[in-house]
Amino acid sequence: MKEITPKSKDASKWYTDVILKSELADYSPVKGTMVIRPYGFALWESIQSFMDRLIKKRGVKNAYFPLFIPERFLKKEKEHVEGFSPQLAVVTYAGGEELTEKLIVRPTSETIMYEMYKQWFHSWRDLPVLINQWNNVVRWEKRTYLFLRTSEFLWQEGHCAHLTEKENMETVLWALNLYKKTYQELMGVYGICGLKSSSEKFAGAKKTFTYEALMPDGKALQSSTSHDLGQNFAKAFDWTVLDQNGNALYPYQNSWGFSTRSIGGLILAHGDDNGLVLPPKIAPIQIVIVPIYKTETKNKVIEYSEKIKSLLRSFRTELDLRDDETAGFKFNKWELKGVPLRIEVGEKEMAGQILTLARRDTKEKIKIKQADLKVSVKKLLDEMQKAIFFKHKQMTEENTHQTEDYDEFKKIMKTTKGFIYAFWCENPQCEEKIKQETKATTRCLPLDAKTEKGSCIYCQKPAKHRWLFAQSY
Amino acid sequence: MKEITPKSKDASKWYTDVILKSELADYSPVKGTMVIRPYGFALWESIQSFMDRLIKKRGVKNAYFPLFIPERFLKKEKEHVEGFSPQLAVVTYAGGEELTEKLIVRPTSETIMYEMYKQWFHSWRDLPVLINQWNNVVRWEKRTYLFLRTSEFLWQEGHCAHLTEKENMETVLWALNLYKKTYQELMGVYGICGLKSSSEKFAGAKKTFTYEALMPDGKALQSSTSHDLGQNFAKAFDWTVLDQNGNALYPYQNSWGFSTRSIGGLILAHGDDNGLVLPPKIAPIQIVIVPIYKTETKNKVIEYSEKIKSLLRSFRTELDLRDDETAGFKFNKWELKGVPLRIEVGEKEMAGQILTLARRDTKEKIKIKQADLKVSVKKLLDEMQKAIFFKHKQMTEENTHQTEDYDEFKKIMKTTKGFIYAFWCENPQCEEKIKQETKATTRCLPLDAKTEKGSCIYCQKPAKHRWLFAQSY
Repeated sequence: MKEITPKSKDASKWYTDVILKSELADYSPVKGTMVIRPYGFALWESIQSFMDRLIKKRGVKNAYFPLFIPERFLKKEKEHVEGFSPQLAVVTYAGGEELTEKLIVRPTSETIMYEMYKQWFHSWRDLPVLINQWNNVVRWEKRTYLFLRTSEFLWQEGHCAHLTEKENMETVLWALNLYKKTYQELMGVYGICGLKSSSEKFAGAKKTFTYEALMPDGKALQSSTSHDLGQNFAKAFDWTVLDQNGNALYPYQNSWGFSTRSIGGLILAHGDDNGLVLPPKIAPIQIVIVPIYKTETKNKVIEYSEKIKSLLRSFRTELDLRDDETAGFKFNKWELKGVPLRIEVGEKEMAGQILTLARRDTKEKIKIKQADLKVSVKKLLDEMQKAIFFKHKQMTEENTHQTEDYDEFKKIMKTTKGFIYAFWCENPQCEEKIKQETKATTRCLPLDAKTEKGSCIYCQKPAKHRWLFAQSY
Repeated sequence: MKEITPKSKDASKWYTDVILKSELADYSPVKGTMVIRPYGFALWESIQSFMDRLIKKRGVKNAYFPLFIPERFLKKEKEHVEGFSPQLAVVTYAGGEELTEKLIVRPTSETIMYEMYKQWFHSWRDLPVLINQWNNVVRWEKRTYLFLRTSEFLWQEGHCAHLTEKENMETVLWALNLYKKTYQELMGVYGICGLKSSSEKFAGAKKTFTYEALMPDGKALQSSTSHDLGQNFAKAFDWTVLDQNGNALYPYQNSWGFSTRSIGGLILAHGDDNGLVLPPKIAPIQIVIVPIYKTETKNKVIEYSEKIKSLLRSFRTELDLRDDETAGFKFNKWELKGVPLRIEVGEKEMAGQILTLARRDTKEKIKIKQADLKVSVKKLLDEMQKAIFFKHKQMTEENTHQTEDYDEFKKIMKTTKGFIYAFWCENPQCEEKIKQETKATTRCLPLDAKTEKGSCIYCQKPAKHRWLFAQSY
């Protein structure tokens, strides 16, 4: 196994090395796209199963809408088509013929879905509409940045419609909270919930809410978004429903998406120089057992290892029986893959009924009695899940600044980077200037931001709120 | 609710009516494509969860390969590209530019996957390769036949590779058996497992195995296929691995797919003039409770209905509380949707603690004591699952013929249709002539076919086996 570049030396090279060598994913022959290998896809399956249960619990149902969207549909919402057109992939030829109408490979499904909503739902009794889909979307990229920026990615896109603005906003915030919960409870990734500025919002949305997570290199990752579409799309598609009094009204709509991009955040947030560090709840393999034996003890040690494995069958446990790799090689391999716990099993362990658990995150080694195995492992995995989240939260807090001085702002963005809270007058020109001068953009207005009397860090004009700034992926 | 066309009058119109009116699916604005609505998608989710568990149990892991395949890849296996080229959708324009190499929207993923296998796997230790993916594929169609023939469909495609021909064939037959199990145990659809003739096999395969199910209109549905690819693709991609002795060898490969087309078979096989009939195991809603009340008893009856619902919480139970529909309308609605059991709850039931269960398949009404509710429902649902399968099996057997007389063969294909076992010499010209004259094709050589001394039903030359013939979807 070749070495991976240390994270501290070159975070970007480290990131690619880790993904390729831990076999999470690979480049595909088409520029801008990637292959998600089984070990990486298992992370996505963990995310899907965690989120899908909560989505269904809310009463939202899964469906499937077509991959191809007629070009004219995309054009119905002006901002929407302007936002997406540079990134579209277009089918012009199919079934042996030039198409009379070009087909867009969906970059997102608002337009095709809302055309159907208009056909299906006509009365207040049909609302709320609560529909989600798990699918693939395409937004053209010339260069692949594995997981973080790829022409095709997997996601879920929820698209609900309500009679009232209030109910609509409840769904928008429920989805944002679902994403926060997934990041925090499953993936151990801390972040800030907030509102996007108008220049950063989704093309066609009234308001966009985001979960922004800080990565250890000081850059922020927009980790998922939930959009209040207001009545924009309903009007663009001329979709009305009759309310209880027989009046036609445009439904209020929202859309919310969580993608395989999140896996990039998971890797960046927790990994170290030895490779991935996976929180136990999302880890495809939670425990690996490595038997250590000489030829004459092989059978006995393997038999004992299998016993240990069966004691741990309520966890995702793997027994590494390859006989062409040394124990040292195996330790490195499973560290690289971020498996939370490693158990070494040899003659000594058999004799003493004492096992050593090696913890991936802290590298501690913990000795336990075999009789306590299941309970100890459960406790340790729970502890690790919390510790990994806490470490990321702490890293975020240590790299979060607040300043009223633009020189200091610039200095931070040149050196350690990180999150900066700063007053902004909400004029897009100041936002643009700050971006040009520091590469930092407004990440969001945190949901819990206080209203204050301040002055814009750029133009000094009055500003009511401290926005969260950072450079971003 | 508008009437549906009786199945006996026009099976094809009935089929479309049922799908649209039960809200399983709808036509999408792009010709050849469809939208799978939540009620239809829930069927696919049942199938996915049933199959995915068995796929994982076999050690096959899920992954995700890109939607776009470079044109040159598809051309590597000659038969493969010839088979698929009339049906391809092609992206020629992306990210604001004409592409230098056209991209094919995957019709199936052999070529993109095997290019990666070649990069990843080099030694006998890396085999078997056991990979599956759940995704969407595109094979252009001008006219949509909902579920049965659509330009885009959802499926799983398994792609394994082995060191030996024997192991490879074990996987091919395991997959075929997985499909049989899914059809028979989950979907209640009887069918025949067998080998495809060379003209009907998958483009690029050495052998194709199929599950063929007879529909009540006398036509067969090719319901899923498992392919022995031999070394064809390994050679086309020049993929070799080193065996235990250090010799390079081409791995043996297989691929197997099960698609949303199967839902078309489910609908056709069991439905009746009142709509869908869903086997309980796959039904998104297994039991519906319809409360029947007058204004003055409303609260009491609803409260009692909720109690009944909570007693049935281990089943997928729905309580229909809409107050703008009559009980009769509701009965029709849930019958149309194929819900296995309906429970009517009114004052009489409350007083007597006796409930009436209406069975969707046989339309029987069964009175039971409320105290026995859970046990009775469980027993009844199990019974229905078996009865629905048995009924389809019986229908298939009643419409299966064996003949050595070509005039009789033609007569059957003109009238009742169905399956016909007939000797065939395995000359593709006879197969083609039979198709032209009777519209019937060879469906398969059943796995359990005996070797006999017969003569071809068409040319009278010696023939060893009776093949299964039918007209097909």
